[in-house]
Amino acid sequence: MGPLPAARYAYFGPRGTFTEAALRSLPMHADAELLPYPSVPAALESVRAGDTAAAMVPIENSVEGGVPATLDELATGEPLVVTREVLLPVRFALMARPGMRLEDVRSFGTFPHAEAQCRKWIAENLPHATYQTAASTAAAAEAIAGGTATYDAALSAPIAATTYGLDVLVDGLGDNPHAVTRFVLVSRPVPPPLPTGADRTSIVLFIREDHPGALLEILTELAVRGVNLTRIESRPTGAGLGRYLFSIDCEGHVDEAAVGEALMGLRRVCADTRYLGSYPRAEASPAPASTSSDSVFREAQAWLARVRERGNG
Amino acid sequence: MGPLPAARYAYFGPRGTFTEAALRSLPMHADAELLPYPSVPAALESVRAGDTAAAMVPIENSVEGGVPATLDELATGEPLVVTREVLLPVRFALMARPGMRLEDVRSFGTFPHAEAQCRKWIAENLPHATYQTAASTAAAAEAIAGGTATYDAALSAPIAATTYGLDVLVDGLGDNPHAVTRFVLVSRPVPPPLPTGADRTSIVLFIREDHPGALLEILTELAVRGVNLTRIESRPTGAGLGRYLFSIDCEGHVDEAAVGEALMGLRRVCADTRYLGSYPRAEASPAPASTSSDSVFREAQAWLARVRERGNG
Amino acid sequence: MGPLPAARYAYFGPRGTFTEAALRSLPMHADAELLPYPSVPAALESVRAGDTAAAMVPIENSVEGGVPATLDELATGEPLVVTREVLLPVRFALMARPGMRLEDVRSFGTFPHAEAQCRKWIAENLPHATYQTAASTAAAAEAIAGGTATYDAALSAPIAATTYGLDVLVDGLGDNPHAVTRFVLVSRPVPPPLPTGADRTSIVLFIREDHPGALLEILTELAVRGVNLTRIESRPTGAGLGRYLFSIDCEGHVDEAAVGEALMGLRRVCADTRYLGSYPRAEASPAPASTSSDSVFREAQAWLARVRERGNG
Amino acid sequence: MGPLPAARYAYFGPRGTFTEAALRSLPMHADAELLPYPSVPAALESVRAGDTAAAMVPIENSVEGGVPATLDELATGEPLVVTREVLLPVRFALMARPGMRLEDVRSFGTFPHAEAQCRKWIAENLPHATYQTAASTAAAAEAIAGGTATYDAALSAPIAATTYGLDVLVDGLGDNPHAVTRFVLVSRPVPPPLPTGADRTSIVLFIREDHPGALLEILTELAVRGVNLTRIESRPTGAGLGRYLFSIDCEGHVDEAAVGEALMGLRRVCADTRYLGSYPRAEASPAPASTSSDSVFREAQAWLARVRERGNG
Repeated sequence: MGPLPAARYAYFGPRGTFTEAALRSLPMHADAELLPYPSVPAALESVRAGDTAAAMVPIENSVEGGVPATLDELATGEPLVVTREVLLPVRFALMARPGMRLEDVRSFGTFPHAEAQCRKWIAENLPHATYQTAASTAAAAEAIAGGTATYDAALSAPIAATTYGLDVLVDGLGDNPHAVTRFVLVSRPVPPPLPTGADRTSIVLFIREDHPGALLEILTELAVRGVNLTRIESRPTGAGLGRYLFSIDCEGHVDEAAVGEALMGLRRVCADTRYLGSYPRAEASPAPASTSSDSVFREAQAWLARVRERGNG
Repeated sequence: MGPLPAARYAYFGPRGTFTEAALRSLPMHADAELLPYPSVPAALESVRAGDTAAAMVPIENSVEGGVPATLDELATGEPLVVTREVLLPVRFALMARPGMRLEDVRSFGTFPHAEAQCRKWIAENLPHATYQTAASTAAAAEAIAGGTATYDAALSAPIAATTYGLDVLVDGLGDNPHAVTRFVLVSRPVPPPLPTGADRTSIVLFIREDHPGALLEILTELAVRGVNLTRIESRPTGAGLGRYLFSIDCEGHVDEAAVGEALMGLRRVCADTRYLGSYPRAEASPAPASTSSDSVFREAQAWLARVRERGNG
Repeated sequence: MGPLPAARYAYFGPRGTFTEAALRSLPMHADAELLPYPSVPAALESVRAGDTAAAMVPIENSVEGGVPATLDELATGEPLVVTREVLLPVRFALMARPGMRLEDVRSFGTFPHAEAQCRKWIAENLPHATYQTAASTAAAAEAIAGGTATYDAALSAPIAATTYGLDVLVDGLGDNPHAVTRFVLVSRPVPPPLPTGADRTSIVLFIREDHPGALLEILTELAVRGVNLTRIESRPTGAGLGRYLFSIDCEGHVDEAAVGEALMGLRRVCADTRYLGSYPRAEASPAPASTSSDSVFREAQAWLARVRERGNG
Repeated sequence: MGPLPAARYAYFGPRGTFTEAALRSLPMHADAELLPYPSVPAALESVRAGDTAAAMVPIENSVEGGVPATLDELATGEPLVVTREVLLPVRFALMARPGMRLEDVRSFGTFPHAEAQCRKWIAENLPHATYQTAASTAAAAEAIAGGTATYDAALSAPIAATTYGLDVLVDGLGDNPHAVTRFVLVSRPVPPPLPTGADRTSIVLFIREDHPGALLEILTELAVRGVNLTRIESRPTGAGLGRYLFSIDCEGHVDEAAVGEALMGLRRVCADTRYLGSYPRAEASPAPASTSSDSVFREAQAWLARVRERGNG
């Protein structure tokens, strides 16, 4: 996975958000152009339309759960695939115009989720500061920078300070030290990158109607091949209560025998199976590579070939 | 399940929403008092605090999916249980001040979800009307009624017309005929109502850490007892990506042998199992009662008792 | 499957038994030579040694169960494969030297199993006849023919009358109308015959030591691919109580995708997997051919190939 | 489990066999009377008829497998239960009339299985001795003692030397050091003995007709409750090929919650479930007691009771 080539890239904006930070965390050509889009569907639609080469969007958050807009958009419409993932810890910065000191902050603006995730720190450190809602964490920073804010400081993604020329008063804020958001870079279908031994594969499974044991069947297809699930989200199909699709991530790569056989099994038992990409896992220290498993599958394939050819393995 | 007794009941407000309509759809004592709360957590907190006897909140929508605030609030904190459920089709009404005619509507206000769900009808019937966002579908109606609206009509729950004294110009709007929202009435723990033969049981399951096969194990516990799953949602526990709890509905009643045995099995294999109530299913025509299944379980229990007592079934 | 070519064929003797009848039921070249062997191991050893082209041996009986000598001999030693199977109803004939009439029979000889399977008929039709044991059903017939018998008639396989020149007094005897024996023709490893759409595949599975869930795992490997089990026998490995191998027949052919994938799965989870052949099922009306299943597997393989090649199924 | 009381006990004879040795290995009242029966069915029939209090019969051998006569007799007819088990290593003794020395043995008699199991020792130690078959290992010893034998020595169970007054020339013979036979003491149905924490439970399961996944279902019922299988034998029901019953042993006691719940599950999914007894395991060092498992089940039962009573576990 080399740097992103010179091209136009979409991200769920506005400028100065965690999603932009996720995109900028990837190595990329100096001439790459990054374009904010007002919504996840808009960003992904720009990819489908060929306006951009790929789009960075959030897919799940360890506190809030899956991002419905991303899950639903990937599950339906023209197929798209994930080619990279980025994990960002949810750490906010309190920022203000140059000259403002922390002890002078009487009010701050931010998006409600950000306020919720820093509530404990604020109670301890800015007990008398009043909170005002903004349309996004970045919008609060922009308002400060533009002089239109009715508050002294913005609680935003660190990148917003650079974007809007603000000073960071405190960094690394966030009451839950485990809070992390996962972002994915999405493009039109491309051949999967080479397996690295520590990959993830994303799929969407549509259940056959009125099939109570369908989810058990799906999980069995994975378990029988030793493929571990790392995320599962049910989403309504829109056809009525109790009608679901499942958005799933598992360990491994589509070119590995275990994942390939599991995908074929899912293809057989599901009403529809949509492949959403195999790509390197972003964890600092992912689980050990499963090459041994692949060799076990290859050995069994060679044995079957001998049995079929000469009646003796 | 008789009518709700005279008491105070909370609902996720404001007045004039589908949630209020869900609560009012239940038979209740003439002196029952219905109180809107500004959020799902606030409504449920009023129950926990003893301020209200029960709260009506939305739990899932056939288009949007589970309601995270409700799922998370029921899964943690002081235990609560569901005692009733209500299903409401998602059918909007276009309403205006008396005198306004449909053909005169040049603009309308509503909550974005409502606009999205009626987009097709609007394109066909009010192609030139402009859309303005409101804080809720009820807020749009209230603004019309109060004369503060900058639009001619409100796209709201039918109940809002009564609440705010408006005329319904068109009723039954909604592009997806399958769209339905499920609401639950939540109280502090009480003994389950008697089984009706067509009940639902809700539970929350906390997975043991680092246990890839946990979900398969959970589903097997249910399947072995013939207990059908009707809803499953994964929610993050907040302890990091890949750490989930599962919010589950299944057919049957905790007092039935199959559900009881399945719950004991889940209790054994999960880190924690939270019971959220057994209550009558609200479908117009639910699946046939599972009394035969209960008799099969009772027969097996009687057989085991004989074997244990005299060595011969 | 054409007729057996001119060659030497072994069968578990002596002459005049059901096993010989099973072998003679197959179409064969006029110059084929049929040789009785005194035991199942001796017959199979003649195949391994190259003395005979194939051997017919009994493998299971619907009343007695599996034939341990055959099961154990196929499971260990130099590999052999089954190429055909024959089902024979267990119907005995009462035979005597020419001139003897049924009403004159005062005594009869046979092998104990045969006596047991005709006991009811004898009680009703020859209530005063005494029974003497012989080393085999054929030995009784041979003794009658040779004049050395101390009894008037032999209860033997119908073929024994032809073999030893006796008259059949009554035919079609056997108290259990469902009694049937399955015989297999065994050769050194050869490529499997072409699938007919109604085949059977035989395998032997050696369990990993101290693995309580091994059998469940084996059955899951088959079930996930929709492969039906038609016979399962546990046999001790000789390494101590609780140490088993499993001798298994399933529907389908090794060249079919479902069976092939299941065999690879078994190869991965078992300590050893021995292929014992794919061959046409002998039932008069076997289950419908599973070609549709094969097409489902082929479709999934083609889909996976597309996904791997271009990132889109 | 105290000593066997004064009563009449049957065993599969003749006198001087391993089965008699198994029965005599149990502590028993001085006035207990031990009676040999000519077959397993005859011994068990004496119990059913009330002629004897219990019968000792072999049930499985680590080299030969299950004993069909015992398995079939326990599976059908009037119910019987196992109350104790005995494990005996298969160790033969070469015995002769007083005065005979090992180096003078020119011939020996025994039952074919015994000859097969000592073949290697004989080849090395009595390479020139000829072998003659006897009706049983005990019959060879009896013939030596009675002076009617045409051979010098008998290869028999050690107990036969005592029974027939012979001298043991060599003891502990048997080529397979793991060879062991398991015997069971069978009585008419009685309440199970108290759990010891290291028990075994025997059952017979009759499969519903034409139900390909039945065995998988059975094993899942056991696995879900954490009940380990220690023996499984398929036996034909006599109703045609492919129609099986399963004779099963598992760890644990019918009075333990895990086994009890598993038995109820089997009762529900099988056409018939026959309980054959819970009794202490005879291994020198059985697996650790499963009391913790029982406490886990009890905890879950108490939790369910609280949920059912007050809506909160």
